Amino acid sequence: MANPFDKAKELATVLKDSDEFATLKNLHDEVNNDEVAKRMLDNFRNVQLELQQKQMQGAQITEEEIQQAQKQFELVQQHGTISKLMEAEQKMSQVISDINRVITEPLEELYGAGEPQEG
Amino acid sequence: MANPFDKAKELATVLKDSDEFATLKNLHDEVNNDEVAKRMLDNFRNVQLELQQKQMQGAQITEEEIQQAQKQFELVQQHGTISKLMEAEQKMSQVISDINRVITEPLEELYGAGEPQEG
Ligand SMILES: [Ca+2]
Ligand SMILES: [Ca+2]
Repeated sequence: MANPFDKAKELATVLKDSDEFATLKNLHDEVNNDEVAKRMLDNFRNVQLELQQKQMQGAQITEEEIQQAQKQFELVQQHGTISKLMEAEQKMSQVISDINRVITEPLEELYGAGEPQEG
Repeated sequence: MANPFDKAKELATVLKDSDEFATLKNLHDEVNNDEVAKRMLDNFRNVQLELQQKQMQGAQITEEEIQQAQKQFELVQQHGTISKLMEAEQKMSQVISDINRVITEPLEELYGAGEPQEG
């Protein structure tokens, strides 16, 4: 009888061999080997991070900051490789989220039993 | 070539067949079939939830509320079945967390590459 940990390792291997991962890795490498693209993406991510931290600390976010973040988002979206990378990250994030939903289904059943179905 | 989603289903099956899950399910059923134990645990969880929500909303938590929560925790800890259930939940939560660490390792490697190793 397999144990969950061994199965998780198999899953990690399958995930690493998946088309989604290959696409993500290729685009990631492509951006990292392009100095301009890398700086553009790093700037974007830093601005995002700063805004998130401000939000978490309950600090006021100005109209100017929102506009600046929006402009930077439009800028990276116009960069072919970066926009493809962000799309690939979104897809991978969806795969991971689907996997987590499947894995925790037995627990959801256990703890959801007896309560009315949602949706 | 297996796809990640199919592997995740295999993992969910293995998890559902695991000793950890069987122990958790038995204790969960035992508590739910014991009216007094169920009410005790429900009360405890409701108090915990209320405190968490207060904390998230940034509301002040009084010394009295902390003491009340502490007392309820000691009470449920003294209940044989409930304390075993909470222990089983802790173990299952550790299993899920280990699984997630293993699954996301390829992504950690990709995004951690080039940065100094921690620990
Ligand atoms: Ca339900
Ligand atoms: Ca590293």
